[in-house]
Amino acid sequence: MTRNANINEEALTVGVRPPAVILCEPQLGENIGTAARAMANFGLVDLRIVNPRDGWPSEKARAAASRADHVIDKVQVFDSLEAAIADLTFVYATTARSREVAKPVRGPDEAAVKVTGLGAEGLATGYIFGRERWGLNNEEVALADEILTLPVDPNFASLNIAQAVLVCAYEWRKTATSGALPFTLDTETNPPAKKEDLLRLFDHLEGALDRVTFFRPVERRPHIIRNIRNIFQKAELTDQEVKTLRGIIAALEGRPTRPRKDEAGEGTAGAVDLGAADDTPAERDGA
Amino acid sequence: MTRNANINEEALTVGVRPPAVILCEPQLGENIGTAARAMANFGLVDLRIVNPRDGWPSEKARAAASRADHVIDKVQVFDSLEAAIADLTFVYATTARSREVAKPVRGPDEAAVKVTGLGAEGLATGYIFGRERWGLNNEEVALADEILTLPVDPNFASLNIAQAVLVCAYEWRKTATSGALPFTLDTETNPPAKKEDLLRLFDHLEGALDRVTFFRPVERRPHIIRNIRNIFQKAELTDQEVKTLRGIIAALEGRPTRPRKDEAGEGTAGAVDLGAADDTPAERDGA
Repeated sequence: MTRNANINEEALTVGVRPPAVILCEPQLGENIGTAARAMANFGLVDLRIVNPRDGWPSEKARAAASRADHVIDKVQVFDSLEAAIADLTFVYATTARSREVAKPVRGPDEAAVKVTGLGAEGLATGYIFGRERWGLNNEEVALADEILTLPVDPNFASLNIAQAVLVCAYEWRKTATSGALPFTLDTETNPPAKKEDLLRLFDHLEGALDRVTFFRPVERRPHIIRNIRNIFQKAELTDQEVKTLRGIIAALEGRPTRPRKDEAGEGTAGAVDLGAADDTPAERDGA
Repeated sequence: MTRNANINEEALTVGVRPPAVILCEPQLGENIGTAARAMANFGLVDLRIVNPRDGWPSEKARAAASRADHVIDKVQVFDSLEAAIADLTFVYATTARSREVAKPVRGPDEAAVKVTGLGAEGLATGYIFGRERWGLNNEEVALADEILTLPVDPNFASLNIAQAVLVCAYEWRKTATSGALPFTLDTETNPPAKKEDLLRLFDHLEGALDRVTFFRPVERRPHIIRNIRNIFQKAELTDQEVKTLRGIIAALEGRPTRPRKDEAGEGTAGAVDLGAADDTPAERDGA
C-alpha cells in the first residue's frame, strides 16, 4: 500500500466506538472475505457471522479478504442472531425490500449519524446484513431497532453483501471523522495570494492591454475589466500563480522581469517589479 | 430482482443530468464489468473507457456486469483521456494519493453536490478513475478540475475501481434524489397515535397500577409516572400499538375489553372502553 507523504492526521484516528458488522448465515466464504476487506478500508474491525453455511474458519474468506487479516483473525461465530447482537444496544437491519415490520427506515447516512452518536458515548452498535440470495426474514428484522436501506435505483437494485457493507462503512467513517480526507490541497507550500498582489496583477495586465489599445470602444473598458478580473478571481490564485501570470504578461509585452524588493530606481529600466518576494524563481528577461 | 410493492416514486426518477464515468486504461475486462454494475445500482449509464488493455468488446466485462447490459451496450471507447472528456464541463480525477498537482481535494459527497448542481443546469460532468495498480499519472490528474479522494483509513487503503465507482455513484444518487429511499415506514396504514389516545393509555395504565398499589411510597408516584410515560413516548406509538397496549393492560388486570363508542352504560360492566374505534380487533374478554 502506498502511504501518502502528508497524511491528514484527522483521517487516521476515529474517536468513537465503531459498530460491529453482523453477517446472518452468509453462504459463501468469499463474501465473508470481501465484506471484511470492505470493512477494513473504512476502519471497521468487529465482524460477526451467524451460522456460516460453509463453516469457519474459511480459507476462501481469508483469501478474498486480501490484506484484511486483522479482521479475519478476530471474526466471532455465533449460532443465532440473538447471540450475535446480545451485547449491542442499537442495531440496524439492512434490507432492500420493504417489510411488514413497522420500523423506521433510514439511509446509510442517517444510520451513521445514529451509530456515531452512540459510539461517542462508548455504546456498542451494529449493522446486520442478510443472506446472499434473500437477505433477512421478518423475525430477524424484528430483532433490530431500525431498518437500513440504500438509495439504489429501484429498477436495478443488485448490491452484494460486500457492497452494502462498503457503503455503510464509508458513511460511518465519514461521519465519525467529520469528513476528514486522507490528504488535502497543501496551502502551506502553496499559500493563496493576498488581495494586494492580485490587484498588482490586474494593474499590470490592464496597463499592458491599454498599451496595445485592447479596450475598444473605450466606454466598454470598465465592463471588460470587470469580466477579466472575474476570471482570475474565480481561479483562486496562489502566490506563485500570480507571479507566473505576471511573468507571462511581461513576456508577452516583451518586457524583462526581475524579482526584487520594493525599491525605486534599482535594476533594469522598464523591468517589471513583481513585488517583495525573496523566493520568486528568476523570470526570463524580456527582449 | 425483487420489486418493492410500494416503491417511493421519488427514488425512481432523477431530475438532473447524470455524470459520466471514465475508466483510464482499465487492465481487466472484469473490472470494467463490475464498474458498470456498480454504476447501474445507482442509475448511472454513461461509461467511457480509454485504451482498455484487453480491448473492447469484452465478454468478461459483460459477464461481470451481471444484468447491467444497458451500460455495457453503450460503452464508448476512446484512445486518449482528452478525447474521453472533451464534451464535459467539469471533471473529477479520483486518486488515493496526494499529488504535486495543486487542485482542490474533495470527498465523494462534496463532488456529488458539485456534479448535481451542474447536472441540474443540464451540464455534462464526469468522474475519472485510473488503472488498477497505480491509478492516474499527474498529467491525467491535471486534465481534471478537481481531485476526488475517499475518506478511507489511511492504514488500509485498498479500494478497487468498482468500489470507488460505487461510493461515488451512491453519493451522486443520494444527492440527486435528496436522499429518497426506495421505501419508507408506511404511516398511512400505520398512523401515529394522537396525544388524547396516548393520555387515555396513561390513565388506563396508571389506574391499573394504583389498584395494585404499585406506587410505594405514594410520594414517588409523580416521579415514577413521569418515567413510565417517557418510555411510551420514546416508542412513538401508532394508533394500533396504543390499542394493543391497552389490551395488554386490560388482560393483565383481568378485565374484559370491548371496542365501542363513547357511550355510558352500554356493554359489559367494568369492560375497558378502548375509545372511539370502529376497526379495533376484538380483544380477549377477561376473567
